[in-house]
Amino acid sequence: MAEEQILDRQDDRTETDLDLGPEWLARIHEAIEAGDAPTLNAMLEPVHPADIADLIERLAPATRREFIDLYAREIDGEILSEIDESIREEVVELLPRNVLADAVREMDSDDVVDLIEDLDEPDRAEILAALDETDRAAVQQSLAYPEYSAGRLMQSEVVTAPADWTVGQTIDFLRAEEWLPEQFYHIILVDPRRHPIGYVALGRLLATRRDIPLSELTEESFRTISAHAEEGDVAYAFNQYHLISAPVVDRSDRLVGVITIDDAMSVLDEEHEEDILRLAGVGEESAITDSVTETLRQRLPWLIVNLATAIAASLVIAIFEATIQQVVALAVLMPIVASMGGNAGTQTLTVAVRALATKSLTGSNVWRVVRREAIVGLLNGLAFAVVMGIVAYIWFDGVSLAGVIAIAMVVNLAIAALAGILVPLGLEKVGADPALASGTFVTTVTDVVGFFAFLGLASAVLL
Amino acid sequence: MAEEQILDRQDDRTETDLDLGPEWLARIHEAIEAGDAPTLNAMLEPVHPADIADLIERLAPATRREFIDLYAREIDGEILSEIDESIREEVVELLPRNVLADAVREMDSDDVVDLIEDLDEPDRAEILAALDETDRAAVQQSLAYPEYSAGRLMQSEVVTAPADWTVGQTIDFLRAEEWLPEQFYHIILVDPRRHPIGYVALGRLLATRRDIPLSELTEESFRTISAHAEEGDVAYAFNQYHLISAPVVDRSDRLVGVITIDDAMSVLDEEHEEDILRLAGVGEESAITDSVTETLRQRLPWLIVNLATAIAASLVIAIFEATIQQVVALAVLMPIVASMGGNAGTQTLTVAVRALATKSLTGSNVWRVVRREAIVGLLNGLAFAVVMGIVAYIWFDGVSLAGVIAIAMVVNLAIAALAGILVPLGLEKVGADPALASGTFVTTVTDVVGFFAFLGLASAVLL
Repeated sequence: MAEEQILDRQDDRTETDLDLGPEWLARIHEAIEAGDAPTLNAMLEPVHPADIADLIERLAPATRREFIDLYAREIDGEILSEIDESIREEVVELLPRNVLADAVREMDSDDVVDLIEDLDEPDRAEILAALDETDRAAVQQSLAYPEYSAGRLMQSEVVTAPADWTVGQTIDFLRAEEWLPEQFYHIILVDPRRHPIGYVALGRLLATRRDIPLSELTEESFRTISAHAEEGDVAYAFNQYHLISAPVVDRSDRLVGVITIDDAMSVLDEEHEEDILRLAGVGEESAITDSVTETLRQRLPWLIVNLATAIAASLVIAIFEATIQQVVALAVLMPIVASMGGNAGTQTLTVAVRALATKSLTGSNVWRVVRREAIVGLLNGLAFAVVMGIVAYIWFDGVSLAGVIAIAMVVNLAIAALAGILVPLGLEKVGADPALASGTFVTTVTDVVGFFAFLGLASAVLL
Repeated sequence: MAEEQILDRQDDRTETDLDLGPEWLARIHEAIEAGDAPTLNAMLEPVHPADIADLIERLAPATRREFIDLYAREIDGEILSEIDESIREEVVELLPRNVLADAVREMDSDDVVDLIEDLDEPDRAEILAALDETDRAAVQQSLAYPEYSAGRLMQSEVVTAPADWTVGQTIDFLRAEEWLPEQFYHIILVDPRRHPIGYVALGRLLATRRDIPLSELTEESFRTISAHAEEGDVAYAFNQYHLISAPVVDRSDRLVGVITIDDAMSVLDEEHEEDILRLAGVGEESAITDSVTETLRQRLPWLIVNLATAIAASLVIAIFEATIQQVVALAVLMPIVASMGGNAGTQTLTVAVRALATKSLTGSNVWRVVRREAIVGLLNGLAFAVVMGIVAYIWFDGVSLAGVIAIAMVVNLAIAALAGILVPLGLEKVGADPALASGTFVTTVTDVVGFFAFLGLASAVLL
């Protein structure tokens, strides 16, 4: 069986989608329509649980229900823990109760926590009831930590050894132990009060003579993580320090669990997703599986904010109605000034938000970066002042108009650069997420400043 | 020493910046100015190499040179491999040649590849010359694979065993082996022609009796990666399938190296960075350490593209100059229509780009998602048509004007939604990066359509 599996997998050279191509998918759909469970099972047998979860996510809602009716018995803990949270509740409620119970019983405690933290109370209670006592205690301990904390991310299954053991004692212990986590990469050394004091990589353990004490093999990379640390900081630490696993401790420094890099990688992925969605003014929980209603709920709030700021910019234009009536060329050219400002501001903003997220914009270089952005803004402004001055002169044959748009361009691109860096820094300073709403703030500034500078100057110079 | 180190690290409960606060940094600056190498060394001794690399990145260029003069002797392979590529060349050229040679000799082959692939020929040749023959061969083999391929990412240091060995034989072999990689998580089983046929997790190996054959312990998660696979696909596979390490094979399926999850995590991080920067129209190699010139070089091209598209939108306005002259309210209101379209389009676009990047928007659900976006766009349009109709009616007291802006809003938001999803799908289809330039395309569409619908309707209805 293991042999067959290996050869099977090895054929799968694209390492992503076995052969989940359109043809394969069409056959899956046929099997669902025909209510043909045996074919479905046979086709999905060699497919990785993560890919089965993806398949479930991509089915249309009605087809999804039919699929789960047919395939429910095969849905195990691995598939369940891979399903996106946007449809998890739906899937959980469709599963027969005994299938659900079996699935959660085979999951690691961190996956159970991840599953039930999004569920409503009755589902939650049902899943907790299905667990045996030790697992239930571990899950409840995890749930006692705040959302998005290391405590929620950790698994309680940990392999520890007293610091005075030798390699031989440790190996004998591991061989005798009935139950070990599916994946573990370090033996954590603990003192008698369960404080972690170091760890030994399994590779070192294997390569060392039986009589050597573990304390001679500990890794320099050892660092503990507080169960109250934010998961974003945990992901940062894993990426920054190339950690593979790290022990999690409570407030009295006692070992309560372990976080492994695959979970940290998922968090990093989610944090990026949030950043990118927030920058675009989309609710950070948006998923491609969302319904129309859910999509509207995620997007309308930001469009309403944008409407308010667009109206604010229009009020600036309204001040200069009389001027526009006399020189209609202003109406033609004004969106160019605003658009260039908005773009330049967004560029600066994005670089600043990323630098803040990766902790590479800090007290030590912040003023140097602000100065650089101001200089870049000014130089961009000068470059485009020349270009637009020439364009306006040729287009509308007016020297004063060309001068007005040139000056407005310099002003707006310089302000855009400053807004692009100062707005996210300000949000970070007051403890808000720099990605959240920065975009709207910055483009409001560039629209208002752009229209005001251009139309205001025009009123003064041209009339 | 190991004991001390552990206690040291454990105090560091924030797990990020030891105590790299402003005060600590001020003392570092003082030591640099005073040319006080001993203090610098003492202060940096407990600091993680990754944090020392960050410090070097954040120093002003002149200070950086002074720092390297003082600290050069302490710069080892670990620090060097952590330094951002934007300043790597500069640092490499400042290092004394023997320090550089020592540093690269202690690096894993993947880190040497990562270092020298960005360097110019003379530096490259010098580093290759410093390596011993086996390492040089490994690095050159890696460099023969295309940039951003799995072959560049892998390290050639691999631990293998014949498939017919037992646990005991393997442990004896590991104990006798002089040289082993610093970190490894699996023993890769190979056949006599060096084809990988499975792997065994070290935890399983440790927990199993000496007489059991390795072939009974292989993991289901085993999958090989082609050395020609793109690094983005490699990162996806690690994240999707929770891989910790994966063997890399050449075109004849022979084992040539191994990729570990920490490298895959870095790639995931970089790919996200690229996406977010590209969406904002910033060169994807932008770094916070860039000089003014470099920053301009990254940003000007996109601003030039934006200028061209902004002028295109202005040409649409110019068609309706006469109309605007008669109804100046149009000039006041038209940016609102364009801005709402731009925002709604960007929302859809961002969700679509992310879904494409995570492979969750595929043949199986693409039409459902396009339909959803079209419906959402239409509903958004209707909602804001009502709001803006009322606003325009109250503001300018005109029923026809209110009707015109309402209809323009519906048209533009529906088109925005379609452009937001179809533009990235189209770019993906022709093999371009959907994140690249999508934003400019989409806002050009919404500006042109917005101005055309609003001013065109106004000309027909109001005059």
